[in-house]
Amino acid sequence: MGREEQKKQASGWFRELRDRICAACEAIDGGKFVRTAWQRDGGGDGEMSLIKGDVFEKGGVNISTVHGEFSESLRKEIPGADSDPRFWASGISLVIHPRSPLVPTVHMNTRMIVVGEGIKQWFGGGADLTPIYPDDKDTGDFHAVFKTACDTFDPAYYPRYKKWCDEYFFLKHRGEPRGAGGIFYDYLNSGDWEKDFDFTKEVGKTFLDIYPKLVRRHMHKKWTDVQREQQLVKRGRYAEFNLLYDRGTRFGLQTGGNTEAILMSLPPEVKWP
Amino acid sequence: MGREEQKKQASGWFRELRDRICAACEAIDGGKFVRTAWQRDGGGDGEMSLIKGDVFEKGGVNISTVHGEFSESLRKEIPGADSDPRFWASGISLVIHPRSPLVPTVHMNTRMIVVGEGIKQWFGGGADLTPIYPDDKDTGDFHAVFKTACDTFDPAYYPRYKKWCDEYFFLKHRGEPRGAGGIFYDYLNSGDWEKDFDFTKEVGKTFLDIYPKLVRRHMHKKWTDVQREQQLVKRGRYAEFNLLYDRGTRFGLQTGGNTEAILMSLPPEVKWP
Repeated sequence: MGREEQKKQASGWFRELRDRICAACEAIDGGKFVRTAWQRDGGGDGEMSLIKGDVFEKGGVNISTVHGEFSESLRKEIPGADSDPRFWASGISLVIHPRSPLVPTVHMNTRMIVVGEGIKQWFGGGADLTPIYPDDKDTGDFHAVFKTACDTFDPAYYPRYKKWCDEYFFLKHRGEPRGAGGIFYDYLNSGDWEKDFDFTKEVGKTFLDIYPKLVRRHMHKKWTDVQREQQLVKRGRYAEFNLLYDRGTRFGLQTGGNTEAILMSLPPEVKWP
Repeated sequence: MGREEQKKQASGWFRELRDRICAACEAIDGGKFVRTAWQRDGGGDGEMSLIKGDVFEKGGVNISTVHGEFSESLRKEIPGADSDPRFWASGISLVIHPRSPLVPTVHMNTRMIVVGEGIKQWFGGGADLTPIYPDDKDTGDFHAVFKTACDTFDPAYYPRYKKWCDEYFFLKHRGEPRGAGGIFYDYLNSGDWEKDFDFTKEVGKTFLDIYPKLVRRHMHKKWTDVQREQQLVKRGRYAEFNLLYDRGTRFGLQTGGNTEAILMSLPPEVKWP
């Protein structure tokens, strides 16, 4: 399959996955996502979908397919970009902040990147869960489905990507993890594009399978003001991580991405008491 | 005057200024600052003073006097640190978030830095105002007193430091300033330590003169829920700036500073709707 056909298939999948995730969230919430399209100066476009609902206090699902040239500072960080700074990137990224402190916050992102005229090409992404009150069954089930998804492709994936997730989503200045983990992978190019694409699709489908189950498990439970306060403080940690460390946030802001779309990940209400 | 005597005088002044600022805020608020001392692994210590009051929803005033060695990554950024990575730093830093959206948020910081065994020594600092609803009289008065303070020392200071403040406290990703400006100076070493120290003291005294006046001007006015919402959104911009850009925050977290003290600047409650 030629590169252009690969790009078309990947960006098409991210769009289809977006539609399926939004439909699944709307079925739970009763509310609707509002969709806003944007154009990128320098090439490409995207769509943000934002829900402000009863179950999902704020949920943002973004897709984008952009191209351009990496800035000087990024050329040193991105594999292959020092010899050819052109890039093409397509992906889906979501963060959902439920209203109830008993329903875990979640993040999922998958993307396909091409640097130069195909000098380097890879997939990356992952999914991770951030409960306010960690629940062994939720955490166990979340990890179990991603382990199954990984094992179908390579038994080495799950331990590697689980570890990468734990290391990545860690607040060094606090000495604490952002949440209960999940998987994180990047620079995936096994030499078999179809296999890597199938794995990336599987990560999205696995998210779509497990997260609605976890939401339904807790969404009807009553919560207390103390639990809400705890949630607002935990969300502060989430904001700290995204603004201090998150590569997607920093990459997006540095490559002239859409600020509103990038910062849609920030929680609707936060406390630093 | 020898270097050790200079260090003693500077750190003594920052402590005295802290006491005077806390007393002035307590006289307005009726509430009390809670003081917490901390030790720095690697050398030095500090004290955080935190008020959670009626007028000041959250106000943090930190002093610290620390010493150690810059990390590899900071050695390239700090003047003189490439030839001798040892440093000594003493300063005061405060951020006050009033409860009323009609009372402006404020930041003030002054510090003395020594790199190596006196290879480089300088003062830095400044003060800037962040109103939710900019008020021409407040902004005018705030700038006027700092212009007077600057002009006493050098007529070139105010235009230079005002511009530096405007450039520094700017959210590039939003294309908007953090607030209504003020002054920002760094690497100040005129060759006359006494003069530079006096200027740094004057910045602190000027803050102590003007900010209580601005608070008293607005603190008894009623505000609406819409104004409160606007304040919480504006505070989101404040958090974005501090976590994405602020050098003091990044410097502090990278040099093993006290995380609680550094992040005391974050607003008590924030919305990203």
